[in-house]
Amino acid sequence: MSHDRTATIGSHPEDTGRPRFLDLWLAARLERLLATVDVRVQLWDGQSPWTSSRRPIGSLVLGDRCTLLGLIVNPELWFGEAYTTGRLQVQGDLERVLEALYRLSAPIPSWWDRLRAHLAGAITISSARRNAHRHYDLGNEFYRLWLDDQMVYSCAYFPESTTSLDDAQRHKLDLVCRKLRLRPGEHVLEAGSGWGALALHMARQHGVSVTAYNVSHEQVVYARERAAREGLTSHVAFIEDDYRSATGRFDAFVSVGMLEHVGRRRFHELSEVLHRTVRRDGGRGLLHFIGRDTPRPLNAWIRRRIFPGAYPPTLTEVTAEILSPSGMSVLDVENLRLHYARTLAHWGEQFGSVADLVRATYGEQFRRAWELYLAGSEASFATGWLQLFQVLFAPVESAPSFWTRAELYADHWSPSFTRHVTLDRWFPRSHGATGR
Amino acid sequence: MSHDRTATIGSHPEDTGRPRFLDLWLAARLERLLATVDVRVQLWDGQSPWTSSRRPIGSLVLGDRCTLLGLIVNPELWFGEAYTTGRLQVQGDLERVLEALYRLSAPIPSWWDRLRAHLAGAITISSARRNAHRHYDLGNEFYRLWLDDQMVYSCAYFPESTTSLDDAQRHKLDLVCRKLRLRPGEHVLEAGSGWGALALHMARQHGVSVTAYNVSHEQVVYARERAAREGLTSHVAFIEDDYRSATGRFDAFVSVGMLEHVGRRRFHELSEVLHRTVRRDGGRGLLHFIGRDTPRPLNAWIRRRIFPGAYPPTLTEVTAEILSPSGMSVLDVENLRLHYARTLAHWGEQFGSVADLVRATYGEQFRRAWELYLAGSEASFATGWLQLFQVLFAPVESAPSFWTRAELYADHWSPSFTRHVTLDRWFPRSHGATGR
Repeated sequence: MSHDRTATIGSHPEDTGRPRFLDLWLAARLERLLATVDVRVQLWDGQSPWTSSRRPIGSLVLGDRCTLLGLIVNPELWFGEAYTTGRLQVQGDLERVLEALYRLSAPIPSWWDRLRAHLAGAITISSARRNAHRHYDLGNEFYRLWLDDQMVYSCAYFPESTTSLDDAQRHKLDLVCRKLRLRPGEHVLEAGSGWGALALHMARQHGVSVTAYNVSHEQVVYARERAAREGLTSHVAFIEDDYRSATGRFDAFVSVGMLEHVGRRRFHELSEVLHRTVRRDGGRGLLHFIGRDTPRPLNAWIRRRIFPGAYPPTLTEVTAEILSPSGMSVLDVENLRLHYARTLAHWGEQFGSVADLVRATYGEQFRRAWELYLAGSEASFATGWLQLFQVLFAPVESAPSFWTRAELYADHWSPSFTRHVTLDRWFPRSHGATGR
Repeated sequence: MSHDRTATIGSHPEDTGRPRFLDLWLAARLERLLATVDVRVQLWDGQSPWTSSRRPIGSLVLGDRCTLLGLIVNPELWFGEAYTTGRLQVQGDLERVLEALYRLSAPIPSWWDRLRAHLAGAITISSARRNAHRHYDLGNEFYRLWLDDQMVYSCAYFPESTTSLDDAQRHKLDLVCRKLRLRPGEHVLEAGSGWGALALHMARQHGVSVTAYNVSHEQVVYARERAAREGLTSHVAFIEDDYRSATGRFDAFVSVGMLEHVGRRRFHELSEVLHRTVRRDGGRGLLHFIGRDTPRPLNAWIRRRIFPGAYPPTLTEVTAEILSPSGMSVLDVENLRLHYARTLAHWGEQFGSVADLVRATYGEQFRRAWELYLAGSEASFATGWLQLFQVLFAPVESAPSFWTRAELYADHWSPSFTRHVTLDRWFPRSHGATGR
């Protein structure tokens, strides 16, 4: 079946016929727009309305009339659909071409976008489970093909341009722990724990206990095996349940890459969980999420094919609807979008190197869809259509447990993931309580 | 005149008579609340309803019935009014007592507060000028008495617990420049430039040109004199005008301690100025302002007596009403509220050491009002009723000009300015102004 599909991809369907006058007229209109970012349009017979004297950075090769019409009527959805089936081919560097297309218009949302963002649906616990299932239960083996050695499926942190992806993911895990100033013996609540890398890192390197929630069965099974292998089962509890089921009080709350799946209408529930679970005296939390500058739904194709139910919130939404109602003060915000672009470049490269295996196992359409998703995401972060925010917060009654951010970077180039960090060495906790 | 006032302050008015049953009943009710934070109430005849076995941290000594009623009916306003006139005395450490009073209730606003915040008035250009005049034109000599050697009237930045105020203000100026990654030859727009310290620092230490707007005549005259003395007049233009008059494109926009005076209904004008003046390719900006976690008007007494028209915005308001509409991405947010508490502790200490001079020049009521304002502000920042945000942003088309924040802290302990050798005249306060 997948083999059949593969066979038709890459070649133009034979039954398309020569472009007619209307096709040429439409293609010329499309070209006029795309030429401003040096992207060429080529029709199914090889014709192109390209008139610019500049060298194009790449071409969109349209396989048939339907693809041409789709790109004009609903480019956001049709680009992905046609690329997946191969009716749209991209000549040149896919990511560069996508970046150019994103740059075509500034990421200022239309009224229609705002309305759709507003309507971005409620995600109930059962639909959260279904959505997570669809994406994360694709099979651990699939993600193992192209993620880092710890299976971290979120933005990495590259202290230097030469940092490898494996190291950059460790740096990210440690940056999160440092921002939270974790101390041995503390109890951390993690919402959405993926394959367990952060929970295990926190327990192993910072001596904390972790209660980690995740609705993906495959991930939880995998994470539990890792915990057992590392002898950390007494310190890390991976719970196959929605984070909203969490009870008790914790020293720290952390969530990396889950907020995007909460759905805007459910933000008040996260707010309520924060209010209920974060200790008022000395507690704190960190949200790491894909965000926007202005409200706008996620790309329609990505939502349909890759991340059903996902919505990247704005900082405004996070502060107004989650943090402020739960009585939290924002202590620190860092935008790491360029780090996500680089992370995605690594993923895309590794994904490309296993293309044959992916094609053989999952089929060519699946491979093309994921190729486009990874390249399109990289372009989104590179151009600022998407942001990556880390937001550190604490209950307002709870004085910040640090004085400056310098300690985060004190031994930045020799990361602490091989040893315990004792921040008390730098700043005794008492200073925060007395405030001065 | 001021001498007469002084004479009556500190002694209880003779004509108050003995407390009646109703006075005692009201005082007992007030005491029941204040005792939870170990603050005692004492009536004008020396009686106190204090029944706790704990030692009070301080006492409110009420001079007459009117003060007792005022504290019950409208404590926010009456505390300040009565303290200023001396009808309310505070025994014990003023700042500690105020901090206890702030802790009495979490800074979660009532509906009434939200409504008032919503109504927080529009500030027109002429009223901005009037408001700034009232506060900042008190006389440069007055501020010179208790500010640092560079006359910086905003939150300082203390890299270490032993940093002096003079150094901490230099560190703040430099932190702002570092966050903006200023490069020699660039052109900076400053909105609200005070006595010119930041503009001159940027030009002197980072080689940029600065166009600085300020509506306070006295401050502009002072700043221009400094620029002339330093030979920087060709690099720094101090313009006595509203920042909204600015034209042209700049590499960086910076505003320290002005946003609080903009007034919420005028945020869209700041947004428009950002959109119009910050270069889209490589431009960036920084807002340093007193803020809130949730919308709430400034303390009524402070607004009436100290800062007419001031409104400390929330992060939500700043992102939703200023940055997002101007197409800006938030790159970095830092909450420095504990640094402002410490700054105010330094100011308060220095203000206390020149009390006689202030009393002789401006009168005792003025001195008490400012004493309360400084101590109350310190308590507000220490308890989290007020926040201090530094928000770094850039047009979304303009990729961040840095990769990590590590460079901000790379040579953190040996700042890039010439260090003034100053005697340690800022002795720590008895209850631990510098103790961490």
